[in-house]
Amino acid sequence: MNFHWTQSEKRLARAVFDSAVQAELAELIAEFKRKAAAVESSDEMWALQEFLERTRYEFDHKYDYRYSVLIFVLARLVREGRIKVEDLEGLSADKLEHIHRILSVGGM
Amino acid sequence: MNFHWTQSEKRLARAVFDSAVQAELAELIAEFKRKAAAVESSDEMWALQEFLERTRYEFDHKYDYRYSVLIFVLARLVREGRIKVEDLEGLSADKLEHIHRILSVGGM
Repeated sequence: MNFHWTQSEKRLARAVFDSAVQAELAELIAEFKRKAAAVESSDEMWALQEFLERTRYEFDHKYDYRYSVLIFVLARLVREGRIKVEDLEGLSADKLEHIHRILSVGGM
Repeated sequence: MNFHWTQSEKRLARAVFDSAVQAELAELIAEFKRKAAAVESSDEMWALQEFLERTRYEFDHKYDYRYSVLIFVLARLVREGRIKVEDLEGLSADKLEHIHRILSVGGM
């Protein structure tokens, strides 16, 4: 994909992206603290360590801001309900259409 | 070191070792839960993940029950105050002497 991103599109995408990052991090922190409070054995503690390691890896992979993949990242966030299509109003018609196409295929 | 370990020495060492493992794990769990409860940001959460990873590695390295290194492991536990020299009464005189020698050198 070689979409051209205007400055205003970049600003919009960045704001939507950052806000999704912050919201998901807040959920992760809450989930982590809930799990940690329930730990009673070393096995549970090491399992939580592995959970955190995996989660961090997946998070970094998911929130990849490179423009070459950003359309897919935004589509995934829409599909997961983390952002709304309306949040993306301001992107060019071809980008929005591409996001809709990705979503219509599903299964990402 | 090629000490011979009798069955009763093995039983004694195993009991002392296991009890130190359990005590240190209980401390680690308490420390982890304290730190986790204090987490407020994702940076702190990832830092705690790295702390756990390192701690687990060091713990597994420290509590190495192979008879070829057990004298050193026991000496270290004495030095750290996790076990008492008296807990080891029942080991042969040469083993106890070796432990004392290791402790007199210090700096392990």
